[in-house]
Amino acid sequence: MFSYTLRALYRNINKCSLSGIKSRNFSRNIPWRNYGSAHLSREKETQAVTDSSKVKEIIDSYDTYLLDMDGTLWGTDHYSSIPGTPKAIEFLRKQGKEILFVTNNSFHSNSHYLNKFKSQGFEAEEDHVFGVAYAAALYLKEMLNVTGQVYVLGTHGMEDELNKFGLQHFGFGPDPDVSSLLVENLLNMEFRENVQAVLMGFDKDFHYNKIYKAASYLMDPNCHFVATNDVEIAVKIAPNRMQPTTGSLIQSVVAASKRKPTVVGKPHTLMFDCIMEKFPKTNPKRTLFVGDSLKADIRFANNVGIDSVLVLTGANTMKDLKDYPDAIPNFVMSSFAEFCIP
Amino acid sequence: MFSYTLRALYRNINKCSLSGIKSRNFSRNIPWRNYGSAHLSREKETQAVTDSSKVKEIIDSYDTYLLDMDGTLWGTDHYSSIPGTPKAIEFLRKQGKEILFVTNNSFHSNSHYLNKFKSQGFEAEEDHVFGVAYAAALYLKEMLNVTGQVYVLGTHGMEDELNKFGLQHFGFGPDPDVSSLLVENLLNMEFRENVQAVLMGFDKDFHYNKIYKAASYLMDPNCHFVATNDVEIAVKIAPNRMQPTTGSLIQSVVAASKRKPTVVGKPHTLMFDCIMEKFPKTNPKRTLFVGDSLKADIRFANNVGIDSVLVLTGANTMKDLKDYPDAIPNFVMSSFAEFCIP
Repeated sequence: MFSYTLRALYRNINKCSLSGIKSRNFSRNIPWRNYGSAHLSREKETQAVTDSSKVKEIIDSYDTYLLDMDGTLWGTDHYSSIPGTPKAIEFLRKQGKEILFVTNNSFHSNSHYLNKFKSQGFEAEEDHVFGVAYAAALYLKEMLNVTGQVYVLGTHGMEDELNKFGLQHFGFGPDPDVSSLLVENLLNMEFRENVQAVLMGFDKDFHYNKIYKAASYLMDPNCHFVATNDVEIAVKIAPNRMQPTTGSLIQSVVAASKRKPTVVGKPHTLMFDCIMEKFPKTNPKRTLFVGDSLKADIRFANNVGIDSVLVLTGANTMKDLKDYPDAIPNFVMSSFAEFCIP
Repeated sequence: MFSYTLRALYRNINKCSLSGIKSRNFSRNIPWRNYGSAHLSREKETQAVTDSSKVKEIIDSYDTYLLDMDGTLWGTDHYSSIPGTPKAIEFLRKQGKEILFVTNNSFHSNSHYLNKFKSQGFEAEEDHVFGVAYAAALYLKEMLNVTGQVYVLGTHGMEDELNKFGLQHFGFGPDPDVSSLLVENLLNMEFRENVQAVLMGFDKDFHYNKIYKAASYLMDPNCHFVATNDVEIAVKIAPNRMQPTTGSLIQSVVAASKRKPTVVGKPHTLMFDCIMEKFPKTNPKRTLFVGDSLKADIRFANNVGIDSVLVLTGANTMKDLKDYPDAIPNFVMSSFAEFCIP
């Protein structure tokens, strides 16, 4: 077992990219600007949690548990299980805790995750899941009040969520136009009217024509630019294979359009707006984030001003803590399974 | 007519990205590091050239004329002519001047440009043309000594030049693999052995799979990363249409691979190495660059330490001069046609 104590000031807190939101009725409970104010002025000490009395003390201190998924509830490869996950969820629920699930993965709709949970040995209600596909659709509909078309670079999980919110959209799958060097052919490609937003997530069919179309729609300053997540750039899937993720795809559109997207995913704070919208009784002071990624999960917790646990079953190890002085968790646990007291 | 004088110190001269070149026999005439040293220590005054006696004085001062193409010899749309171009070229040649052509356009091979010249009303020898496709192939072959495979994101113009240099290459056209979200499918995609370089230019078939493959090859630190040009990011081709160019495509690969390419095109200095290699008697002090772009052409001239003329038939106007304090031309002319004294 490890013992570790780290003191650091909160520094370089990521700026929220939500400036300019024309919200009418969304964040009625806690305006996002207030998040984190209690935490920004004090030092924080990371405690390695190594015994069940400390776990009990933590459980007694929080009513709402926000759980990351990949690397926290199961392996980062999306396949392998983390032993004890279902038992810990059951234990927390028995203590009367509210369990919510918060993921940056844009591959799937929220309803998809319910099946994933079942396959891992536990269950949940759909409205307890906060995926970036869902949050992006909610943001477009409720906060940006989009009524026109949304041009989407993304997966079918995003398509499902946009449909649920009744948003008109197009762009999924391979681009229908033949690619060309010639200006006359580019000008003849399919463009729709009344495109009010470009939404970017992970897109396996990302293509030159899509960069061209996104950049063209974004020439209209009233066309919103929203991305599901930007914290992951690429993932090493083999010693000589690097899988690019949404963060790298965004870069071409950002360069071509000279626009920066509003990013929905962690560590940006919009997902917490969604949670507060759906669960307005949530008390941030008694809410704990559990995740495996310092730059996504722990930064998110810091940005919204809630406490956090780093679990060592995914992206980061103890050694990484020194590299992220702006992402200091309150606690470190070996895994989420420790939340089940024997 | 205009009258305009601008004084400015050379500042923020772009750093050349050629560090680490293992050159054996290439820049044997003028090492690139020496370029520009004469210019860096003095102030420069831009003179608006408005009468033929000044043009005559300029012509008498330079033996070698490096001419940009798009926006300088013809319109930036690649279609429209600039009146007087053929006559000015003929006039300079009659004065015994050496005329060389230098373009960042990666669409075409050097031989392609000979037909373009004919259609515009003048002729040239192929070895007087310095295109980025040619320069990139020369760089890979002669300076990096690449003997293995080159993975190329580009056009057939680049393919032609690589073939001329006997370089083995692959990647042109649409990626042959079916795109997928799944790691097992990504791992089964086609990858070649002995890939010694990734070469990026403009690629109308740019696709997710290509970003994945480029980033994977670039995990090998010995695999070179070369790009034809980065100064252009996107070009407005209609009031609501933005055509992304090489500069924006590069960004996704840079993000996914965490590598930065060596850039061949202007304002980087490699094209001048190519010119000095082919025309070793060129005297930089009696060489004049004529171009329409401050950030590509005039910066290039400054970076290599030669004098320059901004022509107002393309990318930039007089007003733009104040925005580029590191790209001050020696002269401004309304068009290249002024080089023909009546």
